[in-house]
Amino acid sequence: MITLYDLAGADDRLRFSPFCFRVKLALLIKGLAYRVERVRFVDKDKLAFSGQGLVPVLVDDDLVISDSWKILQHLDQHYPASPQLGADRASASLDFLRFWCDRALHAAIFRIAAPFVHAQLTPEDQTYFRSTREARLGKTLEAIAAERPQHVAHLQLMLEPLRGLLSTHAFIDGAAPGLGDVVIYSAWLWAEAAVPFALREPNDPIAAWLDRVRQQWPLSAINV
Amino acid sequence: MITLYDLAGADDRLRFSPFCFRVKLALLIKGLAYRVERVRFVDKDKLAFSGQGLVPVLVDDDLVISDSWKILQHLDQHYPASPQLGADRASASLDFLRFWCDRALHAAIFRIAAPFVHAQLTPEDQTYFRSTREARLGKTLEAIAAERPQHVAHLQLMLEPLRGLLSTHAFIDGAAPGLGDVVIYSAWLWAEAAVPFALREPNDPIAAWLDRVRQQWPLSAINV
Repeated sequence: MITLYDLAGADDRLRFSPFCFRVKLALLIKGLAYRVERVRFVDKDKLAFSGQGLVPVLVDDDLVISDSWKILQHLDQHYPASPQLGADRASASLDFLRFWCDRALHAAIFRIAAPFVHAQLTPEDQTYFRSTREARLGKTLEAIAAERPQHVAHLQLMLEPLRGLLSTHAFIDGAAPGLGDVVIYSAWLWAEAAVPFALREPNDPIAAWLDRVRQQWPLSAINV
Repeated sequence: MITLYDLAGADDRLRFSPFCFRVKLALLIKGLAYRVERVRFVDKDKLAFSGQGLVPVLVDDDLVISDSWKILQHLDQHYPASPQLGADRASASLDFLRFWCDRALHAAIFRIAAPFVHAQLTPEDQTYFRSTREARLGKTLEAIAAERPQHVAHLQLMLEPLRGLLSTHAFIDGAAPGLGDVVIYSAWLWAEAAVPFALREPNDPIAAWLDRVRQQWPLSAINV
């Protein structure tokens, strides 16, 4: 029996953790059934058994694993008969794509999404989110919201390498969707869950890729 | 007989085109002898035979090829017995690394390097470089030089994914140097040729990688 601890907004149905999306996509690809335990930012006690305070946490029978990449590696090792994700034999250049996503793309999305995420949290989570995120950003959520046009322009500029890739390949992994698509699509699902306007540009190769990847992995099959 | 048209500064020995470095590294890896024809920015007539105005241009007997990636593909196809670069069978994620280099890293280096490049050109090239680059930047070279601290900080931030990769792999291609290393090292050689201060940070995994890659491909073997 697999249980995933997934971050939820004030509305239980709202999920927006990119790292939880990564695990949910992996479970979908591997065709593994699981139940979700919803946690909120302030529910640190619910995760205490994992020895740390961050989602995703995956409980697989008596195994407890945190960190999304380690969870993907576990799923491949533990369920070798279902489709392989390949997280433990990723190429160096796929690792680069992942580090770019985690260290650059997420930061760019966060500057746009943070005020919208805040608006969709429970009052207790709002207090926690505001104080931790304003400390990280070095400014108030209102200040970051006022700068939105420049953050959107920055995101569009930094998506250029992805547009280059998707002008010459159908999927981020090449001819078929794979681990690279899981990584970037997870970031995009977070952005779409939080931000009430489209982040793709007209005639954007990213939009065409999203259509293809959404057909493969529809949101209704991801947020169980 | 192979001839490479390579961009030179006022001093013939100064070379700083990242796309020319890419080709020179490819020729080094494949062990192919070649001669260099030095061109300057204003020498468009010297390149007219190639049907366009940009370096690198490679002349291989009666074949004329511009665009560094097409040159790499040509070298593999034409010289299959020497070590393969793999440019025509690059993975999608290596293409991403290349697009990131061409569309993001180069732009970040350019904002730091431009005033230093300008100072090292012939008077005719200085006039050409100033007018074309100030139009591209939307500001004067002096204005971009005055903003240098923020451009250096931006570069350091955007190098984070590369640091992630090089914390877990010896080379950008993984265990051994390859095409990804050629791409990023070429950008770095340009930065080092132009900028009179080190762009790596203390304890930077990029610095350790540079030591390894420089041992493999020393500058003295690249600028023939």
